[in-house]
Parts: sequence; structure tokens; C-alpha cells
Amino acid sequence: MVYIDLNSDVGESFGNWTMGDDSAIFRSVSSANVACGFHAGDPSTIAQTCRDAVEAGVTIGAHVGYRDLAGFGRRFLDLSPTELADDVLYQIGALDAISRAAGGTIKYVKPHGALYNAIVTHEVQAQAVVDAVKAFGGDLPLLLLPGSVALDSAEKAGLRGVAEAFADRAYNPDGTLVSRREPGAVLHDENEVAANMVRLATEGVIIARDGSTLKTTAESICLHGDTTGAVSMSAAVRRDLEAAGIDIRSFV
Amino acid sequence: MVYIDLNSDVGESFGNWTMGDDSAIFRSVSSANVACGFHAGDPSTIAQTCRDAVEAGVTIGAHVGYRDLAGFGRRFLDLSPTELADDVLYQIGALDAISRAAGGTIKYVKPHGALYNAIVTHEVQAQAVVDAVKAFGGDLPLLLLPGSVALDSAEKAGLRGVAEAFADRAYNPDGTLVSRREPGAVLHDENEVAANMVRLATEGVIIARDGSTLKTTAESICLHGDTTGAVSMSAAVRRDLEAAGIDIRSFV
Amino acid sequence: MVYIDLNSDVGESFGNWTMGDDSAIFRSVSSANVACGFHAGDPSTIAQTCRDAVEAGVTIGAHVGYRDLAGFGRRFLDLSPTELADDVLYQIGALDAISRAAGGTIKYVKPHGALYNAIVTHEVQAQAVVDAVKAFGGDLPLLLLPGSVALDSAEKAGLRGVAEAFADRAYNPDGTLVSRREPGAVLHDENEVAANMVRLATEGVIIARDGSTLKTTAESICLHGDTTGAVSMSAAVRRDLEAAGIDIRSFV
Amino acid sequence: MVYIDLNSDVGESFGNWTMGDDSAIFRSVSSANVACGFHAGDPSTIAQTCRDAVEAGVTIGAHVGYRDLAGFGRRFLDLSPTELADDVLYQIGALDAISRAAGGTIKYVKPHGALYNAIVTHEVQAQAVVDAVKAFGGDLPLLLLPGSVALDSAEKAGLRGVAEAFADRAYNPDGTLVSRREPGAVLHDENEVAANMVRLATEGVIIARDGSTLKTTAESICLHGDTTGAVSMSAAVRRDLEAAGIDIRSFV
Repeated sequence: MVYIDLNSDVGESFGNWTMGDDSAIFRSVSSANVACGFHAGDPSTIAQTCRDAVEAGVTIGAHVGYRDLAGFGRRFLDLSPTELADDVLYQIGALDAISRAAGGTIKYVKPHGALYNAIVTHEVQAQAVVDAVKAFGGDLPLLLLPGSVALDSAEKAGLRGVAEAFADRAYNPDGTLVSRREPGAVLHDENEVAANMVRLATEGVIIARDGSTLKTTAESICLHGDTTGAVSMSAAVRRDLEAAGIDIRSFV
Repeated sequence: MVYIDLNSDVGESFGNWTMGDDSAIFRSVSSANVACGFHAGDPSTIAQTCRDAVEAGVTIGAHVGYRDLAGFGRRFLDLSPTELADDVLYQIGALDAISRAAGGTIKYVKPHGALYNAIVTHEVQAQAVVDAVKAFGGDLPLLLLPGSVALDSAEKAGLRGVAEAFADRAYNPDGTLVSRREPGAVLHDENEVAANMVRLATEGVIIARDGSTLKTTAESICLHGDTTGAVSMSAAVRRDLEAAGIDIRSFV
Repeated sequence: MVYIDLNSDVGESFGNWTMGDDSAIFRSVSSANVACGFHAGDPSTIAQTCRDAVEAGVTIGAHVGYRDLAGFGRRFLDLSPTELADDVLYQIGALDAISRAAGGTIKYVKPHGALYNAIVTHEVQAQAVVDAVKAFGGDLPLLLLPGSVALDSAEKAGLRGVAEAFADRAYNPDGTLVSRREPGAVLHDENEVAANMVRLATEGVIIARDGSTLKTTAESICLHGDTTGAVSMSAAVRRDLEAAGIDIRSFV
Repeated sequence: MVYIDLNSDVGESFGNWTMGDDSAIFRSVSSANVACGFHAGDPSTIAQTCRDAVEAGVTIGAHVGYRDLAGFGRRFLDLSPTELADDVLYQIGALDAISRAAGGTIKYVKPHGALYNAIVTHEVQAQAVVDAVKAFGGDLPLLLLPGSVALDSAEKAGLRGVAEAFADRAYNPDGTLVSRREPGAVLHDENEVAANMVRLATEGVIIARDGSTLKTTAESICLHGDTTGAVSMSAAVRRDLEAAGIDIRSFV
């Protein structure tokens, strides 16, 4: 049977500030990238998100980021590999305790924001993230961008690297994402997006912006839930995938 | 055989700022209250401290505090029981991962600073701390002030509450500590302090400032390591306890 | 001519998290309590808010709070008077530079959240806030709750204390606010609220929940802008005040 | 008459963590780079440092840095020019209020740590710092590394750029600093360092590590005060400069 994972960033509220509608997005996804407090997510937010994920039967992943609340973890931070590995391990451990208290458990790790992007090419930071996952124990898989050097680092360390696609982003013919600075980088037509994702799940391909066909190894699709439109698009993707007979389930 | 535990606060450096001499104090104590990042202790500091504790054979405890780096956790913060329980659970989890990676494991929890003092009388915050320890699992004992309502909260929840004495503080005849605002509140003569602690370990009593004898249930002695004098006093206490044939070992 | 000030909390977004609709609320109010970074408000948010306030002709006040982003400044923090005075002065200075660069200037100071509530009775913290305002120079007025001891502290120091009323809150017969824990504490009918505020501006009275009439010295009305309903209510209050011939203008 | 400025980083304690001996270093320097709270320096530390500087007759400068307490501002942070300019303006404003309350006033701006190094080549961040200084008003000079592109940015904006030399660092023949990773990068002989600085002040040259003579435009010498040895070296530099008849005074 054909299946695919749908993941989304959750637990990104902080104190009095709310972000996203975790309960709504949990109706669409199979995997929850839960913020761990360094770029977003205070402990009570994280705890509520974990309880909601457990209740919804959604798999919990640790969404680890740079220590940068003001920048939401979206600004590259040039820390040492030791600092990064320890920061990541600290975050995984904190989420581990909270997810266990909620009746769940961490099943994978996904770097967030600028860290996610950095380790596409930054071998030292990629290795630090892998070192932290190894140090935590349990050989958790890492959810990453296709082509990320962190995939290699993970595999060399005996960890599974899982590639993901982005539902609402246009692709260049070489498989990279169209830069957000270019027009058409972000897709807004939920039916088009859903059709693309059905094609990805059934045929393993993405149609690039020039119409060429790209093979993809993606085992998961990243959806967004931070706006009303994003929640609706996520629901559409799930609906059309299920209508096409595709099983939505965690890659773990 | 007579025995007693010696504990000290460690892992309290933060980034470029150092505090205390953890390696030196590890030669004297049997238990390490390791900061967890909210009042002190960045992840790399915590990791190094855990490795040092494991190498020195010192038992690791989670020194959980209010989220207040600027105040070093020494200022009462009126958070909700949910916020406090989640903050404490987050800290224990973070330290758990780091201590495990260092080859150790958390064996107890000691609240820090203003939180430690608050839960002497603040039943709601005391219960929140106990709830967090229960939520973490493993029924870790709590290290507390004699008479703290948190001792009752712990016992009602099926956790062991362990009372401690303070080596370098003078006691009132009612068993409370002499306020730091009064002269003579802090003892500086290391031989006098060491003799007091031998008496405590062998006879279970403390001599109050008026000369009266206090029975104590303390199973641990808190030593300080944040100054050169404190490290020296800690070494003197250990030396004299050992000379008196008392075994220095964790209460766990 | 009869006049009244309308004030609202603004600049409370932080990094990627947004709160309130400052542009919308600026169409209703005459005074903007701008967050200064300790409980909310990153520098770029503050800068944009100040530019918007200047463009809208709204008077800028410094909304100073405890250093507690995770608690949004709503949790009492027991800091020393020196720490509090320096924290407040730091915040006023930061906002001063940003507001000047935006073409504005700080005209008053309003403590935020738990600090606002603490200094209703906490004389030491009240004095610390007053000391900070004096240290900044220019003898800025303080916007406070009627009956706050900080009003006395301000006046003794030669500062003007300005009392404010809360548009959407019910009052007890003794002039205190009905606790949010009681039903009916928050008013939702914008026409009722607007009528109350017209009465306050023209007759200087508030009708308590038992129907009794309270004299008030309030020179400003606090409106909220953090929800769509709050923005709408604020607009209704302004509309009805203007329809009654009341001038909406800063108390400075 | 020949003169030179001696500057040092101060106000770098944070809460319970102390760093450096500001009172001691104030006996040697003419300019104080005062931390502004983003990489170091809580408001009470800053206030005390400003009072000490005023009392010692030392000129106050704003030592602005990245928002990164955990990294002490020593890790490159890839923020947007708007974010950086607003962060810098916020810091200058905060220090301005505190220094004025202490009877002083900010006379220059020196970027700290990774920001200082970044703007040697990073034109966008350099421009953002210059924009912040312009936005603050008063056309404060900027203290920078010789050759820094920020010197050009400053001059184009009508600000004075002041170059500085490092007393305890070895120089390559091209005028760059010997990397700290190479042996001999840091000089420890206080008499040698003092002699070098006398030569710099009187002849305008530095002797590179290969013996070649470098012309320098440095109008200030950066001294360190974070260790006992550094304080002693700073005193030696001042002593030998004065013995050579050189006036120690601010470049402003």
C-alpha cells in the first residue's frame, strides 16, 4: 500500500503569544515537529501540544533550533560544534520529559529554521546535530531537506535520514526550492498543491516550475499551520491523499 | 556505621561567566546540585559539570529554579502552578539527557534559591514542584529545608523528602537559620564549622547561637563552593568527618 | 470644553509573534503605552509602533514591566528596589532613543501588568519606579490605578500622578475592579461600555455593579486592542465620546 | 603635545556573575566601553559602572553587541539590517539614560565581539550600525578596527571613525592581527607591550612579528581588564606612556 507522512511545526506559541492552531493541524498531519523552547515553545505550551498530539495519535518529533527567541530561530548563529551539540541535546531532553509526562515519546528530530538551512551545507553544524542525537540515545531518525549534508552525517553515524518535500513551495529544475524572493515561490492554490502531493506520494515525482519532472526521495511532506489558509490547505492535502487511497502515517 | 551526605551547588557558570570551582568542590562532596539552565548553567557548562561529577563519583541532582538568569533564581516569581510544574519538568528533562550522555543519571531534585525558600511555606508552589517530580517518573527524592511544607507535599505524593543542614550558617533556638541581615549569621571559622558538622553526623544535633541543643533530621549537609574560602571550608568539613570515622556518601 | 484621554497597550509583538493591531487601535486612542522590551516588544516592533504613533498623532508613553518575556510581565517578581529602578530606567532610555528616531518623544510612564498591580500597595517597588522616572529626568507623569500608593510616591517626588479607568471592567461599590474570577467582571456590550465612558467624561462618575454611583478622578480611559472585539469596542467608545462633544486628547 | 586614548571593555558582569575589575581598570584607561545589556551588563551593573566611570573621569562609550547572552556576543548572528539597527539603537538609548542618571553621557560607540569583527567586512551590518548611530543623533564617533569597512560607512554618513590598536596582540606584516590560533598571538610581557605602545603613541608605528615596521592610524589603544594580569598590564602601559610624557586622554 502507498503511504506518506505529513508533518507540521507545532508548539510555537510562547507565553502570552500564540502561533498556529495546533489542534486544527493535528486533524491533518501524522507527525508533529514540537518546538523545544529555544526558538519557540514555553514549557506549558509544549506540554499542552504534547497532550494534544498524543490524543490525536500524532507522532512527536523534537524541533530543535538556535537559542534565539527574538529571531524565532531563523537567523544563522555561528556557535561552536560543542555549544550546538549541547544546546540540541538539552532541547531533546526537555521535550523528552514533557512528552513522556503527556503519554508520548519523541520519535524523530527535525532541526528548525536557520539551523535546518545551515546544515544543508555546514558540515560542522550538521555533525554537531547528529552528535547530539547520538548522545541522546535511541538512534532517532532526522527529518531533513533532500540533499542536505546532514543526511550524509546521519547515515555515517548509523542514523536514518528522512527527506521531506514542501507542499506549498515551487521547485527549480535542479530540485532546490525557488527562493522566496522570486514571484511564484509560494503556492496558494490548495487544489494544485494537493494534486502535486498526490503525485509525489503515488509516483515519487515533483513537477518543477518549468514543467520538468523531478524524482524525489521524500518520505514526508511538510505542511504549514500558522495561518487559516495554511490549515485549510493542509486539510485539502490530506483529503485528496486519502481520496487517492494513500495511507497517511508517520515515517517511523 | 555513621554516614552523612555532603551536597553543593555546581554547574552555575553561564556562557563566558564562570562561577565556583566545580572540580575543586567535587573533591569534598558526595552530591552535586547541578543547575539546569533557568537560573544558571548553559548546556555546555552543565555537560562538563556532569562529566566531572561522573568522573569524581559524585551523585547528580537536578537543581531546578525560576526562569530568571538576571536574578540568578533568587527573586520570588509568582507563576501559576502549571507554569511552575512545566518549567521544573522541562529542566529535569534537559539535565536528564545531558547527564545520561555523560554516563550519569539524576538521583534527586533540589529546588534552588527563591524557589527553595518559597516552598518552605508556599503550598501551591510546593505541590507544583512535587507534581513535576512525579511527572518525570522514577520517584526522585527531594532535598529540602527541615520544616519545609514541600517535605509534606513530597511525602503525601509518595516521594522521599530529605532534610539538609547548612554548614556555614548559624541557627536560632527554634531551628530556623539566623537571618543574613544579623551579625554572626554566616560562620567563617572552618574548624568550628567542621566540628559542628561532626557533631551533627554523630549525635544528630546542632548547637544554636544561644548554646541550646537542637535535634535535627538532616541527612545531608549543604556546602558552598563559590569562593576560595568556601572550597577550603568544604575540604575541612570532609577531612574532619572522615577523621571521625564518618562515611561521606549520597543519601540516595 | 470637556475632554478625556484614551490609552491602550501597544508594541506588544515580539519577533515572529504578533499581538494586537496597533494601526487599528491608533485610530481610537490619544495615548499609546509602548512596550519597552522587558515584558514584550522587540526593538523593531517598538520602532514601527513609534513611527505609527507619530504618524497617527498619538502621544507615546513608556510601558515598563518586569523582565519576564515568558510571563508577559504578568507575574510578580520580587526584585530589589535598585534592580527595579535600574530596569525601569533602562527601558525608558531604550524607548526614548527609538521614539526620538521616529520623530516622537516619551510623554509619560505607565507600569505594566504585575508591576502595575504590585505598586498599588507595594511601597518599595512604587518608590523604585518613581525613582527611575526622576532619574530619567523631565518629570514625566505616571499613569496609574486610582488609589495606588504609587500616586502618593509620585506626588511626594514632585511628579504628576494620573489616574485611569478601565472601559471594559465592572466596578465594586468601593471603587475597586470586580475580580476577573467573578462573573460579569469583563463587559462585552460596546454600547453599554461607550455610554459608561461618556458618563465618566461628562459627569466624573462610574456606575458600580450594584448601581451605586462612584466619583472618579480618572483623567484617562484604558482601552484594549488585543482582539478584534476590543478594537471595535475602542472605536465605539471614541465615536460616542466625540458624538457627545467630548475632546479626545492626551492628559499631558 | 603627544597624546593617546586607552580604552577597555567594562560593565560586563551580569546579575550574580561578575567579570573584570572595573574600578581597577578605571585607574588606567581614559575611555570605557560599557556593555549595554545584549551581550553582557544588567541595568544595575551598567549603572554602577557608569557612576564609577564618572567618578574616575573616564569617558563613556556604548559597547553594543548582538542579542546573545549565552554566547557573550561572540557568535556571528545573521540578523537583518533593520533588526540590527534597531537593536543597536535600543542599546544606545538604554545606556544613554543610565549614563545621564550617573552624571555622564555617551561620547562614542564601539561594536562588541562578533559584531565588531563582522563589520570589518560585512557592509550591510556595518551600514546598519552606522544607521543606528545616526538615528540616535549627536553624530557619535565609532571606535573600530583599522581597515574596517565600517570606517568607510561611518565617514560616508558624516561620522568620525576612530581606529584602535590592541596592546596585547601580535601583528602580521600586512597589519592584521595574528590569529589567536597561532603561537605568539597574545603578548604577555607587560614591559614589551608597554614599550610597543609608547612607540605607537610617539612614532605612529607598530613592529610586526617579522620585525617590519607598520604605520598605524590608531588613535586609541584597547586594553583588557578581565584578568589580574590584564589589569596589571594596563597599569604598566599607562605608567610607561606617562613616563614618556604622553598625555592619556579620550579621542573625543
